[in-house]
Amino acid sequence: MRVLSGIQPTGKIHWGNYFGAIRQFINLQSTPDQAYYFVANLHALTTIRDKAVLEENTLGVVLDFLALGLDPNKATLFVQSEVPEVSQLCWLLLTVTPMGLLERCHAYKEKKANGLTADAGLFNYPILMAADIIIYDSDLVPVGEDQLQHIEVARDVAARFNHLFGETFVLPKGYVLDNSAKVPGTDGQKMSKSYNNTIQVFEEQKQLRKKIMRIQTDSRPMEEPKNPDECPLFQLYQLFGDEQGIAELREIYAKGGFGYGMVKGLVADAAEKVFGPARERRAEWASKPKEVREILDAGAANARKKAKEVLLRAQENCGIFPPK
Amino acid sequence: MRVLSGIQPTGKIHWGNYFGAIRQFINLQSTPDQAYYFVANLHALTTIRDKAVLEENTLGVVLDFLALGLDPNKATLFVQSEVPEVSQLCWLLLTVTPMGLLERCHAYKEKKANGLTADAGLFNYPILMAADIIIYDSDLVPVGEDQLQHIEVARDVAARFNHLFGETFVLPKGYVLDNSAKVPGTDGQKMSKSYNNTIQVFEEQKQLRKKIMRIQTDSRPMEEPKNPDECPLFQLYQLFGDEQGIAELREIYAKGGFGYGMVKGLVADAAEKVFGPARERRAEWASKPKEVREILDAGAANARKKAKEVLLRAQENCGIFPPK
Repeated sequence: MRVLSGIQPTGKIHWGNYFGAIRQFINLQSTPDQAYYFVANLHALTTIRDKAVLEENTLGVVLDFLALGLDPNKATLFVQSEVPEVSQLCWLLLTVTPMGLLERCHAYKEKKANGLTADAGLFNYPILMAADIIIYDSDLVPVGEDQLQHIEVARDVAARFNHLFGETFVLPKGYVLDNSAKVPGTDGQKMSKSYNNTIQVFEEQKQLRKKIMRIQTDSRPMEEPKNPDECPLFQLYQLFGDEQGIAELREIYAKGGFGYGMVKGLVADAAEKVFGPARERRAEWASKPKEVREILDAGAANARKKAKEVLLRAQENCGIFPPK
Repeated sequence: MRVLSGIQPTGKIHWGNYFGAIRQFINLQSTPDQAYYFVANLHALTTIRDKAVLEENTLGVVLDFLALGLDPNKATLFVQSEVPEVSQLCWLLLTVTPMGLLERCHAYKEKKANGLTADAGLFNYPILMAADIIIYDSDLVPVGEDQLQHIEVARDVAARFNHLFGETFVLPKGYVLDNSAKVPGTDGQKMSKSYNNTIQVFEEQKQLRKKIMRIQTDSRPMEEPKNPDECPLFQLYQLFGDEQGIAELREIYAKGGFGYGMVKGLVADAAEKVFGPARERRAEWASKPKEVREILDAGAANARKKAKEVLLRAQENCGIFPPK
């Protein structure tokens, strides 16, 4: 079983990203076969048109993952563009991709339906993603539900290549991440960049507390007993607290006679306990660019070993001379 | 001035290919800057789905060019897929290519208009071609009139990248080949694969003579004077004969009193005089696969020197980390 996760370097990660995906990605690093994690900078180029921003975001994801517990001795961590075999495979796959397959993909379809003009990068994105997946013989790709379509595209294209040129690629399967964790944002809605209600994972301690204190709450009197499962603050506390703490807070809610300010304090303390050390580790990694570069070099070298093998298989089967 | 020509390995070349393009390509090898010639096998993959055929055709083009006078000491001759930087640049360009630009391209548009299903390879082909051109800082691309649109696409995409990320690419210009040479096929119509009326450049001598003898002629009486410029046989002779021979044949036509069989004999002799030695050189190169491989290796190494430089410029300007 080979696990593969690509992460787009689109900016600072928030609690929703962490509990919805990143934590689960990192937990998979202990699967018996080497797990691969890459920063999808070639994908980000479809939306980011600023050299400095893209470079900073790319390194940012690397620091985020190292800080949050990705162990480069266990897993392979690399930057997508440092494995040039992916772009080569992408072209081979494009030649066997029916246009209809790409025209049906959500991101492009929605943009077109909204009357917006798209670039060919957005349109062809699912095939670069297919190359990302197929080139490591990945059989298990953990994704959010919304990405499942892309895994199916990868599977279809790999199968069509196999059909035309003989057995070449492993057919990947999607593994849908558990997205049952509720992560409300500062306005009580689901935390999301597009709602502008996020709290960042690596928020500075002071800023973190400030943001939590500003979370919107209702105006029922303190004395009134409350249902914790309907309270965003309690939902946030559940993400961080230990079992005992959660049980105690549940009782407080049931009894009533408490202020939301107190709960906010608990959330801030619990969040700090989890993310505080991560913030320190991130700062530490950020101060060691040479070591980070070494990790990425080793990761790319390891990934390329596998990528070269699979690309060569594809080239040989379709009659394309490989480069020296 | 950097001249670049890509040749699709789609099968055996005929007289129409030679006089319409190949001869002119080869004549450009003496331009002061190094001229680049490549076999576009990644393009051919959009139509050829047979390993053995594609491999044979790819090497076939190399042998054709060497036999017809391409001097590997003067020009750089290589196989497209042996310069992996091209596929890498292709993706970068796709991210800045408006869909409308590709939707307007002839090959895709016609296929769609005919109700046929296209693959993404055919759709994205102009951008792979743009990468081919841009990656060598080519400023002059000799093409047939029908390919001029693709040079404009390359120019547009290069200009958009420069606009978004700063001066990066040289903007290429098309140079339309002289297609005034009339090359009739065995039925008197324009020689073309689609009319099934071709005579191949490397036809065996006996076969060559046989095909020429079967060229369709009219049934006017021998004695009648004839206008040479309206006669396909005379047009063919003009391609091969020397000035004196052409002038003499012109007089014979004007006087009348000759048989088409005699003219066919003249055409066959003249064609053999030009293509006979080329056929021998081709057989000789075909018997030296190691030497051919060395030429291709040296060609790819030389092309990659330039390709790496331009790709790196592009990667740096848009914030993509280059591979080691």
